[in-house]
Amino acid sequence: MSPPDLLSSFKFSVEDRKTLHKIMLARRDMRHFIANSRVDDEILQRILTATHTAPSVGLMQPWRFIRIKNAQLCERVAVLVDQERLQTAKLLGEREQAFLKLKVEGIRDCAVLLGVVQAPDDGTVFGRRTLPDEMALCSVACAIQNLWLAARVENLGMGWVSLFDPAALAALLGCPDGAKPIALLCLGPVHEFYNKPMLEQVGWRQRKPLHELLFDDVWQDS
Amino acid sequence: MSPPDLLSSFKFSVEDRKTLHKIMLARRDMRHFIANSRVDDEILQRILTATHTAPSVGLMQPWRFIRIKNAQLCERVAVLVDQERLQTAKLLGEREQAFLKLKVEGIRDCAVLLGVVQAPDDGTVFGRRTLPDEMALCSVACAIQNLWLAARVENLGMGWVSLFDPAALAALLGCPDGAKPIALLCLGPVHEFYNKPMLEQVGWRQRKPLHELLFDDVWQDS
Repeated sequence: MSPPDLLSSFKFSVEDRKTLHKIMLARRDMRHFIANSRVDDEILQRILTATHTAPSVGLMQPWRFIRIKNAQLCERVAVLVDQERLQTAKLLGEREQAFLKLKVEGIRDCAVLLGVVQAPDDGTVFGRRTLPDEMALCSVACAIQNLWLAARVENLGMGWVSLFDPAALAALLGCPDGAKPIALLCLGPVHEFYNKPMLEQVGWRQRKPLHELLFDDVWQDS
Repeated sequence: MSPPDLLSSFKFSVEDRKTLHKIMLARRDMRHFIANSRVDDEILQRILTATHTAPSVGLMQPWRFIRIKNAQLCERVAVLVDQERLQTAKLLGEREQAFLKLKVEGIRDCAVLLGVVQAPDDGTVFGRRTLPDEMALCSVACAIQNLWLAARVENLGMGWVSLFDPAALAALLGCPDGAKPIALLCLGPVHEFYNKPMLEQVGWRQRKPLHELLFDDVWQDS
């Protein structure tokens, strides 16, 4: 790594730009993993280090990563997700059966399972007087996005699972009052990445074009 | 860009990995910009395209980007931020004067000002039965983190300003009911990037070491 004073004035090249865009384009929310595979500690450490370069409001760094290694604990977490999957299916009404056919997580197959928790509020005022919870949560999400890109560039898949009851997961992970589980991250080797978002690939939903999400000066209904 | 079927099986190299980590390390939350500078439309479009590769829960893409071009509107937004800065200062008590000496935003200097708004809830159930608002917000934050990295690799600074009253900003930007302004993004050329987070550089706060934020299996107080 370059000394900080070199990094601050570092000029990235056209090639660097193409690399970054390629990583972003190739990143996918993965649910299919190679069972019984592993991730080297050195690689995992490098991926987690990427989270630590994320921005945070008032420099509060509200992210906490819990590596779920214990097999019994892993299974309890998986059962929690199974339960939420059924709850979600019920709520989907006419799409219940279609939903139940989808693979929505890879908890039992992935090499590494991480719980991501938003730490209890540390009272930071800077930049979060009007949106305190939101800004802490956004910081956690930025750290996860860094992790996602860092995993893809190691040619590893990552999937963000949000199908869980947060209070039940907090209890399983021994979280203190005020700590909020935000994500279960499945990380590990995959046979192949999806060509496009899996939900698009299976016909569940299509992405909107970019121009519908950009406005000048005032909101326009699209 | 490669065809999707090539991208899905693309293997990134050690060099690609080093590039990504360098971009992440060099990314900063910028408040100092070169006044009266500009960003080419082609570059801005490329940066915004990066947001569109972000993940979103249930593929809902809840992010909306409003480019604030009108000079009067820009000034109104700047005044809103000025007001919030004073409110924040008051709440900081003994750190009020130290806070008021900091440069906390670059709204009047940056080349491009963007408002980022979380769209009204579209009723997506997939992946957000238990954490509906949180998961939509996390998707917006992931898109912003992509934008941040895409700006840095173009050698442009970006700063996330969260010092505003969301209801007042929503009114200025003509947002519909249920839309939530999340960020004002200042984007543009800078003389130099900070060597480390500006809040650390000026002695406001120090970052925690990574190992204090990682646990095995259960939360440990650090």
